[in-house]
Amino acid sequence: MHKSHFGIIGLGVMGRSLAKNIAGNSYPLSVYNRITPSEKEVIPTFMKEVTSKSVQGFTDLSSFVDSLASPRRVLLMVNAGTAVDHVLENLIPLLAPGDIIIDGGNSHYQDTQRRVSFLQDKQLHFIGAGISGGEEGALKGPSMMIGGDSEAYSHVQPIFEAMAAKDVKGKPCVTLIGTDGSGHFVKTVHNGIEYAEMQLLAECYALLVPSYSYPEIAAIFKEWNKGTLQSYLLEITADILIKKEGDDYLIDKVLDKAGSKGTGSWTSQTAFQLGIPTPTINAAVLARYMSSFHKERSTWSSKVSKTMKSEDTINLEDLKTTYTFARIINHHQGFQLIKEAAKENNWEIDLSELARIWTSGCIIKSKFMESLVQTFKNSESILEDFDHFNSLVSSEKSIVSILKYALSNRTSIASISNSYDYFISLTTARSSAHIIQAQRDEFGAHTYKRIDRPIDQSFTTKWTSNG
Amino acid sequence: MHKSHFGIIGLGVMGRSLAKNIAGNSYPLSVYNRITPSEKEVIPTFMKEVTSKSVQGFTDLSSFVDSLASPRRVLLMVNAGTAVDHVLENLIPLLAPGDIIIDGGNSHYQDTQRRVSFLQDKQLHFIGAGISGGEEGALKGPSMMIGGDSEAYSHVQPIFEAMAAKDVKGKPCVTLIGTDGSGHFVKTVHNGIEYAEMQLLAECYALLVPSYSYPEIAAIFKEWNKGTLQSYLLEITADILIKKEGDDYLIDKVLDKAGSKGTGSWTSQTAFQLGIPTPTINAAVLARYMSSFHKERSTWSSKVSKTMKSEDTINLEDLKTTYTFARIINHHQGFQLIKEAAKENNWEIDLSELARIWTSGCIIKSKFMESLVQTFKNSESILEDFDHFNSLVSSEKSIVSILKYALSNRTSIASISNSYDYFISLTTARSSAHIIQAQRDEFGAHTYKRIDRPIDQSFTTKWTSNG
Repeated sequence: MHKSHFGIIGLGVMGRSLAKNIAGNSYPLSVYNRITPSEKEVIPTFMKEVTSKSVQGFTDLSSFVDSLASPRRVLLMVNAGTAVDHVLENLIPLLAPGDIIIDGGNSHYQDTQRRVSFLQDKQLHFIGAGISGGEEGALKGPSMMIGGDSEAYSHVQPIFEAMAAKDVKGKPCVTLIGTDGSGHFVKTVHNGIEYAEMQLLAECYALLVPSYSYPEIAAIFKEWNKGTLQSYLLEITADILIKKEGDDYLIDKVLDKAGSKGTGSWTSQTAFQLGIPTPTINAAVLARYMSSFHKERSTWSSKVSKTMKSEDTINLEDLKTTYTFARIINHHQGFQLIKEAAKENNWEIDLSELARIWTSGCIIKSKFMESLVQTFKNSESILEDFDHFNSLVSSEKSIVSILKYALSNRTSIASISNSYDYFISLTTARSSAHIIQAQRDEFGAHTYKRIDRPIDQSFTTKWTSNG
Repeated sequence: MHKSHFGIIGLGVMGRSLAKNIAGNSYPLSVYNRITPSEKEVIPTFMKEVTSKSVQGFTDLSSFVDSLASPRRVLLMVNAGTAVDHVLENLIPLLAPGDIIIDGGNSHYQDTQRRVSFLQDKQLHFIGAGISGGEEGALKGPSMMIGGDSEAYSHVQPIFEAMAAKDVKGKPCVTLIGTDGSGHFVKTVHNGIEYAEMQLLAECYALLVPSYSYPEIAAIFKEWNKGTLQSYLLEITADILIKKEGDDYLIDKVLDKAGSKGTGSWTSQTAFQLGIPTPTINAAVLARYMSSFHKERSTWSSKVSKTMKSEDTINLEDLKTTYTFARIINHHQGFQLIKEAAKENNWEIDLSELARIWTSGCIIKSKFMESLVQTFKNSESILEDFDHFNSLVSSEKSIVSILKYALSNRTSIASISNSYDYFISLTTARSSAHIIQAQRDEFGAHTYKRIDRPIDQSFTTKWTSNG
C-alpha cells in the first residue's frame, strides 16, 4: 500500500467530518482511533461509511504512524486539555525529526505555546489550528486559522487549502495567522464574537416576544437577513423560531439554561488580562452563566413586582438600528483584542486577511464580515473607519429609545446596553476617572497625573480635611 | 542582644508602616532591606525614625535570620510576583524546619498555593496574608486575611492580633480564613469589591456634576454618610471634592486616567473562570481600562452629537436608592464569588467572620459591612436575606428613572446599569437562553434539555428548514 499524505487521530464528530472532507479531496489518508469499550466500533464504522480506497483505518498507533509519508503530518482531533498531552506522550516516540503535529481542537493558546517549545526541542513541528464551522463546516469546508512556523505550514498548505471553505472570490478560507498560539488565540476570539452575536439575537428576541408571535419574529429576522445584516446566525435563528413539533413550537420546549465550553470565558479572561475592554462579549458569556441559576430565577421571579408600566410597542426600525450598532461594537472589541494580543505575543496578524477567512465556513460568517476585509485595508480599527463611526453616531437616538423600552419592560439586554455604554465611554472627553485617581491617592498614595503638568510628573496630596 | 520575635523583609510604604505598628506594640522586631543604589538609605533612615530599642535593622540577610527566635517568623513585604520567589530562593537555605514565612503582598492566590506546597516539601510553613488598609491601616491597624495551616497561625496569632484593627466590639480584625491561598484570594475579592465601590461613587458624581457644584455634591455625600450608607470611601470622596488648590478645586486638575494593579482584574478573571457573574465589579475594572484610551476619547468626543435632550434635574432620592441598591448587589457578587471559590478549593470560609474583619482597618469598611456580619449568620447569601431582597425590589422604580436619566444625558454608568441588569436576570423565570441552546444545537449538535422531560435526557434536532 502507498504511504498516506495525511493522518488524523480521533474520529469524534469533528474528526470524522474532516476525514471525509479530506477523503473527498482524494488525498491518501490514514485515520486512527483508540479502542475503549465505548469506542471500539469507531474505526470499523467509519471505514464502512467512506467508500474511498485512499483511506486506511488503524487502531494501533504505531502502524498508523508507519503508514504516513515523510514528513509525517498528523492532525489531532481530541478534546482540548490533558487529552492532547496524553496523545503527544504516546505519539512523540514514534515520530522522526521534521514531522508535523497539528492540534485542531479548541486549545488554549498558551497551552499551544508551551507545546510548540516542548516539541521544538525534539525537532518536531507543532501547529495550532483553529477550525470553525461545526460539523457541517468540517465536512463541506471549514474556516481554518493556522498558528505555526512557515516551513511546517508549507507542508500542509495544499491539503488545508483543498479542505477549507472558499470565499466569494474562490480563495480558500485558511491562512497562516502567525507563529505558535496565534491560530488558537484568534479561534478563541472568534468564539467570543460568536457568543455575543448569539446573545444579541437572543436579546432582540426577548424584546420582540411580548409583542410578536414566533412566525412574526422569524419574518422580521428574515427581512433583516436580506440586507447588510445578513449572517449565518441570523438565518438559523429565524428558522429555529418556526420549527414545529406537532402543533407546538419546539423552542417553547427548550430549557433556558445555556451551556458553554471554555472559549467564551477565555476571551473575557484574556481581555481582562491584557486590559482590553470587551464588555459586549463579557455580557454574552455572563448571560449564559446567569441562565444556569435556574432555581433562584424561578423562586425569585415570583417576588418581584410585575406591575411596571410597559410602553406600547417596540419600534422595529429602532431595534434594527440598535442590533446593527451592537454588532459593529462587538466586532470592534474582538478585533481590538486580537490586535493587542498580537503586540503582546509578537504575532504579525493581518486583520483584513483574518476577516477574509471568516467570510465563509465559520459560524460568524456574514455580510458585515465581508465588508471588514476592505475596512481593515484602509483603517487601523473598525471605529477609525469613517462610515462605521458615523453610522454609530447616527444610531444613538434609536438605541436610547430601545434601552428605555427594555427598562420599562424589565428585559435584560446586557450585551446591547454594554455596547452602548462602551461607545459613550469612548466618546466622552472627560470621564469620571479623576475621582478614582484621587481616591487611590488618598488611601494608598498611588499618586496622580495632572492635566496642567507634563505627563511624566506624578503628584500626591493629603486630600482629606482630617489629615 | 535578645532574639527578635518577628522579622520583616522589605521596608517600602507598607512594610515600613507595619514595622512601626509592631514596634509600637513592643514586640522585639528585626527588619531587613536589600542594598541597591536607590535603597541604600532605607535601613539607616528607618532606624532613625523608630525610637524603640526593640528594633534591629539589617542589610545582611543571614544576620537578619540569625537575629530571630525559633520558630522564625518572617514577613515578606516585597512586590507580588517574581520578587517573592527571588527572596524565597535566598531565604530558604538560611531557615530551619518549622520556620514560618508570611507573604503580606497582593500575591495571586494560585502563586501562594504553589509556594505552600513547595515549602511544605522543605518542612517550612508558608502563610499568605492579605493586608488591607493602605499606609494608614498598616500603621494604625490593618484588616488581615490569613491563609495557611493552623499550627503556623498559632505562632503568629498573638502578634497579628496586636497589630490588627479592632472592630466595634474591640475584637481584632484578623482571622484564619482557610488553608493555602484563601487569604490572598479573599484579599483579591476585597479589592474587586473596592473597585466597584469606588466606581459607583464616580458614577454618582458623574450623574450629579451637570446639576450641582462640588461643595453641593460633597454635602449630598456627607448627608448620605450619616446613615446606613456610611463608608470610608464615601467619606473620603466627599472630602476629595472640596479640596482646594488656591482658588481652584484640585480635582479639576487631576487627569482622568485611572491606574490599576492586578487584583481587580484577577477578581474578574477568576469569576469568569469559575462561572460566577460579577458584572458590577467587571464594569468597574473596565471603566479604568476605558479611561486609559484618552487620545481616542478626546478625538472622538468632538464627533458625537451633543444635542440630545437632557431631562431637567436628577432626583436625589432616586439616586440615593440606586446607589444603595448597587452596593448591595456589588457585595452580593463578591461574597458569592468567595463562596464558589471556597467550594472549588476546599476552603471552609466563614462569611460572617470575613465580613467582621472587613468592618475596620480596610478600605471597604462601612455600616453595610457591619450589617453583613449578622446577615451571614442567618442567610446563605445577601439576596437570600429577606430584608435585603425586599429593599432591592422596592428600589426598582427609582433605578429605572436614574438609568433613563443617564441615557438622556449620555452618561456612562456601567456599574450601576450592570447591577440592575444582574437583578433583572436573577428574577426572570424564563430567560432567552433557550434561543442560545437551540442555536448551539443547530450548528454544533451540542444538544439541549427540555422543560417537559427529565433533566438527565438530552435532545438534538435538525432545526433549519433546508436540513
